Amino acid sequence: MTNVELDGLRARLDEINGQLLELISERAQVVQEIGVVKEKQGVPKFDPEREKAMLEKLVASNKGPFTSGTIRSLFKQIFAASLDLQSDEHKKSLLVSRKTRKEDTVIVLPGDITIGGLSSVMVAGPCSVESELQTRTVAAALQKAGIKVMRGGAFKPRTSPYDFQGLGMDGLRILREAADEYGLLTISEIVDPAHLEPALDYVDIIQIGARNMQNFELLKAAGELNKPVLLKRGLAATMEEFLHAAEYIMSRGNTQVMLIERGIRTYEKWTRNTLDISAVPILKQESHLPVLVDVTHSTGRKDILIPCAKAALAAGADGIMVEVHPDPATALSDAAQQLNIEEFNTFFSEVKASGLFR
Amino acid sequence: MTNVELDGLRARLDEINGQLLELISERAQVVQEIGVVKEKQGVPKFDPEREKAMLEKLVASNKGPFTSGTIRSLFKQIFAASLDLQSDEHKKSLLVSRKTRKEDTVIVLPGDITIGGLSSVMVAGPCSVESELQTRTVAAALQKAGIKVMRGGAFKPRTSPYDFQGLGMDGLRILREAADEYGLLTISEIVDPAHLEPALDYVDIIQIGARNMQNFELLKAAGELNKPVLLKRGLAATMEEFLHAAEYIMSRGNTQVMLIERGIRTYEKWTRNTLDISAVPILKQESHLPVLVDVTHSTGRKDILIPCAKAALAAGADGIMVEVHPDPATALSDAAQQLNIEEFNTFFSEVKASGLFR
Amino acid sequence: MTNVELDGLRARLDEINGQLLELISERAQVVQEIGVVKEKQGVPKFDPEREKAMLEKLVASNKGPFTSGTIRSLFKQIFAASLDLQSDEHKKSLLVSRKTRKEDTVIVLPGDITIGGLSSVMVAGPCSVESELQTRTVAAALQKAGIKVMRGGAFKPRTSPYDFQGLGMDGLRILREAADEYGLLTISEIVDPAHLEPALDYVDIIQIGARNMQNFELLKAAGELNKPVLLKRGLAATMEEFLHAAEYIMSRGNTQVMLIERGIRTYEKWTRNTLDISAVPILKQESHLPVLVDVTHSTGRKDILIPCAKAALAAGADGIMVEVHPDPATALSDAAQQLNIEEFNTFFSEVKASGLFR
Amino acid sequence: MTNVELDGLRARLDEINGQLLELISERAQVVQEIGVVKEKQGVPKFDPEREKAMLEKLVASNKGPFTSGTIRSLFKQIFAASLDLQSDEHKKSLLVSRKTRKEDTVIVLPGDITIGGLSSVMVAGPCSVESELQTRTVAAALQKAGIKVMRGGAFKPRTSPYDFQGLGMDGLRILREAADEYGLLTISEIVDPAHLEPALDYVDIIQIGARNMQNFELLKAAGELNKPVLLKRGLAATMEEFLHAAEYIMSRGNTQVMLIERGIRTYEKWTRNTLDISAVPILKQESHLPVLVDVTHSTGRKDILIPCAKAALAAGADGIMVEVHPDPATALSDAAQQLNIEEFNTFFSEVKASGLFR
Repeated sequence: MTNVELDGLRARLDEINGQLLELISERAQVVQEIGVVKEKQGVPKFDPEREKAMLEKLVASNKGPFTSGTIRSLFKQIFAASLDLQSDEHKKSLLVSRKTRKEDTVIVLPGDITIGGLSSVMVAGPCSVESELQTRTVAAALQKAGIKVMRGGAFKPRTSPYDFQGLGMDGLRILREAADEYGLLTISEIVDPAHLEPALDYVDIIQIGARNMQNFELLKAAGELNKPVLLKRGLAATMEEFLHAAEYIMSRGNTQVMLIERGIRTYEKWTRNTLDISAVPILKQESHLPVLVDVTHSTGRKDILIPCAKAALAAGADGIMVEVHPDPATALSDAAQQLNIEEFNTFFSEVKASGLFR
Repeated sequence: MTNVELDGLRARLDEINGQLLELISERAQVVQEIGVVKEKQGVPKFDPEREKAMLEKLVASNKGPFTSGTIRSLFKQIFAASLDLQSDEHKKSLLVSRKTRKEDTVIVLPGDITIGGLSSVMVAGPCSVESELQTRTVAAALQKAGIKVMRGGAFKPRTSPYDFQGLGMDGLRILREAADEYGLLTISEIVDPAHLEPALDYVDIIQIGARNMQNFELLKAAGELNKPVLLKRGLAATMEEFLHAAEYIMSRGNTQVMLIERGIRTYEKWTRNTLDISAVPILKQESHLPVLVDVTHSTGRKDILIPCAKAALAAGADGIMVEVHPDPATALSDAAQQLNIEEFNTFFSEVKASGLFR
Repeated sequence: MTNVELDGLRARLDEINGQLLELISERAQVVQEIGVVKEKQGVPKFDPEREKAMLEKLVASNKGPFTSGTIRSLFKQIFAASLDLQSDEHKKSLLVSRKTRKEDTVIVLPGDITIGGLSSVMVAGPCSVESELQTRTVAAALQKAGIKVMRGGAFKPRTSPYDFQGLGMDGLRILREAADEYGLLTISEIVDPAHLEPALDYVDIIQIGARNMQNFELLKAAGELNKPVLLKRGLAATMEEFLHAAEYIMSRGNTQVMLIERGIRTYEKWTRNTLDISAVPILKQESHLPVLVDVTHSTGRKDILIPCAKAALAAGADGIMVEVHPDPATALSDAAQQLNIEEFNTFFSEVKASGLFR
Repeated sequence: MTNVELDGLRARLDEINGQLLELISERAQVVQEIGVVKEKQGVPKFDPEREKAMLEKLVASNKGPFTSGTIRSLFKQIFAASLDLQSDEHKKSLLVSRKTRKEDTVIVLPGDITIGGLSSVMVAGPCSVESELQTRTVAAALQKAGIKVMRGGAFKPRTSPYDFQGLGMDGLRILREAADEYGLLTISEIVDPAHLEPALDYVDIIQIGARNMQNFELLKAAGELNKPVLLKRGLAATMEEFLHAAEYIMSRGNTQVMLIERGIRTYEKWTRNTLDISAVPILKQESHLPVLVDVTHSTGRKDILIPCAKAALAAGADGIMVEVHPDPATALSDAAQQLNIEEFNTFFSEVKASGLFR
């Protein structure tokens, strides 16, 4: 007999489910109509006072068995879903999102060098531009190895104000000259909106560093440019925050944005940071932008750069960034973790030999 | 005219809200009735197959404007709320929860010493029991300072198998004898379910350490005893996991459980762990159990024990645990962070002088 | 006989220790003399090439029993200690350091309001300045409660570019007017170096936010001003990085700097961030600057603000910051965590009643 | 003239360096001789009292320019290095260390299945053994796909005592029967030392879970067995702690140990844990043990298992573990993250197609 009873109750449940579906759908339509009216009036769609009033009314008429808290929470979700119908269009239209643009963004650089899409890129160079000799030595080695894009820091954001802060505009000039001599493109970090404009002559890609990932004024200024931007993930930024930081750039009109994972801060002490490898496929899924991995900063250890670069490429990264210095022991920054030229050649050969570098 | 329009749409919205409330409430009642039938039949209340079928049906009849994903998500929440009505009773009946028991649990120890409630407790003693002399020296000092409960490790869970692992049952005996001589109660960590029974004669409070917070076999075994248990928060345990670990003990019948915050693992390097002070008021709110703070392990620094102990008490902690050793420099474990006796006396005086130690 | 043997060996050890001490001390003097010569020549004191050469030489003449690695490591430490003798002066002269300045820095604001030193300060106000009405309502309530400093965000660094970004200069004007009407001082976050100068008329304290803690261009620009600066700890900044960020400001001449702990990012989900209470005594020890605690952002939960504020004061904080809004439910940012005015009054009364607010 | 001066000072520095080297080396020899004497006497080599006395003596005779603190620190390091000479042998002889054993450990299982060395292994199966039908369904699918080792939990360590805790010994029996029917080997987690012995008939590899990584009693008991053990990294364990946990097993005689990275706890919310990919090459370098990666728990997301498995193999992992269930939606644990059989087949094909699975 209980099974008959159970069947009856279940039939009633199905009936209620159907009615709920109808009501919820009708509700959503009404909210959409209200949205249209409000848009005409130029009034914001979300009206917290009205929502609060509706919730109070519902709680007042609630006779159980749900508690007021549950009613509040369920209806908040129903309200939010209706509202999301409108902002969903908004979300669907996040410019960085794969939903907005299905195809991979491919950055086209001078000389038809591309980043993103089918081929991998290796970006290499010293942590800091220190001298013409040092920069030209690296540039020559990179050219010989077949590298197309050289990095080199001129404005160095350093923890201490008394540490070497980079050569500034002079450094950018040295980088440009060395790159031109050896047929390379340049990438360098800019930390002040005021330096973006003057830097345009010297750099082919503007880098925004980890510490500035949420320096929104800098992001907005970079968004006004017609120059590719490489955005580094913050020290402890979530992927969601990272994508929104990229959105700041894109929302101002600059569509040439690349993302680079550089390790996140955790409790582990045997690496400088923890390379968040899962971020690579997730960012590639959520966004159409190229995703690179900085193996130097994410690990802080020369001895595991080869397996980590392979892992990054196997996970779907579009490129790798690595630091190279003619004589790391005497480097003015990041001395311990830069490869010397011979080490770099071995590194690059092994990465290519894996077949993962396309 | 649009305001008339808006008012009409809003009235319709209110109507729908009311109908949704009625339906959701009725739905909950039907689910409760089904629960009663199932209970009689001895069948589990949650039937994932049935839930899946209902969701499929709803998605199939969904004509928009919500996507299938939103419908699925909204109804999952409605289903979950109904189900929670049953397990809410279940949750309401989490034994550690303040909802189950409004009044503070007060642990009554031999000699009518209490932990929890209106007075504060200071638990002190060496990291490890190393010798009779060392233990008696501390015990004498504690008695003189007016301390009632002495800690001392006999089974030491150490990172390396080659580090000093404690004196074992011998250590417990030494601890007991010193405590008896100076009129103190004892607390010591047990790491193996098999040692619980033999330890009962030597310890007044059983400590379960951070590394064993989710050693569920040990928790269950401790739950079978009639002896107070002090449970340490795991190295990277959430508060939710911490409370559920305590529930393992209580669910087996032992209601004499105390919680102790001992710092969580973060990236910060100037402290050994990060003392999660917010955990104190949250645990006190969520649970009726006494909450202590281990200032030694949470900071790993002697020089900030006084302000941290005051902060713990100001945040509502029922007690403090601190490590004291006659000669910390020669200690077999935790050498750097134990107070010597003179330092302990200063520490305890200053904590009392603050008026926060009740 | 072996004890005689042991005693002989130990005597030889003592002798060697003494000789090592003499040599190491002489070595340090020689390095200091070299430093003097180099300073005259205007040559940098640290010469990595020379250090490398010395290490190679030592390793080459090493006949054991130490491995080359150990020799390298020991001598690097000896070299570093000698070098530190010089930079120790440098370190001793970190401007934020307690070694440079023994007495607490006390910030003197208009109307002889002070922060730091013997009295506590309570900074309160809305997350964002939203309207004149909202701001004046809060200001009136704060005046009534005896508060002297009102916060209110005009430039809001928000994760998404599509979220409310604050009223900008208009917001600052509204804040100033409300503050003047009710006899309050103002504090507001500035995110762009270009806004610092225009903001001077409106704010009595410039706040630099957590996301900009290592926006060094902003720090340097704030360092050029003659206006107190409140620097927030970054989301995942170490205390060392935090102090160095403050040093960026002080190194430019602005000595009126305050630090504020606002929670760090951890895995725990029941709080928005983890309030790092140990940072309070450590920062007070290491530095002479006032240290405040932002209880709103560190916890993200209204229900534990009272115990957390008490804990902060018990740990030695010079003040508390808390968010207050006339109607939190309708706030344009941080809706869930702001206190309403009644809640704020209860909060402040209870904090004062504890006797910890001096 | 100053260059002559500089050259003279540098020559003196070189001389002192040489003398320091000689003295330090002689000191080390004396310490070694003392060690020999002490070993004969059965006295511990490290004598903290004696070290303290030597330090006091040095500080007392220190005439600068180093501070007492620096002298203390430098000599502590010299003392530690000498002591390490003895324990270095000890460290060199950490059984898990690559220094102790140069060649990769290869685990040989029944049927000459191997883990470690040249070929990769794929371990798959349900989170929990729930029924004979469920287990046999998976086993059949795994056999068809060419899998050799099936996982399946019988003792489930669950956060709440009221969650499904596994079928216990019954579960192990079901797992064994299904495995035998389809020619598979079995792996299952054991949580209680008392269950190890009875489990030996049912499992070919004993798994020790993340929550029990520092349950040293369980590790020691597993170390007494002649059965391969798969040790999971703890939720927030450092690599150093992980290797020492493995050492607990090996130090008891069981050399058949495998390590498995399963993600660490961080602030990131888009993945369940953060897969620490750098741990793979570091563990392979530091240790000779096989290293696997559990892609299911480290990510908690089905949609990125393929790139993460490829990344793990590219980084040098010896194998992958993944959860498969005939109907994940109805699973009694880990419902959201298990692959169904079709998804598993796609997953395994793609991983093999990458050429990274050897």
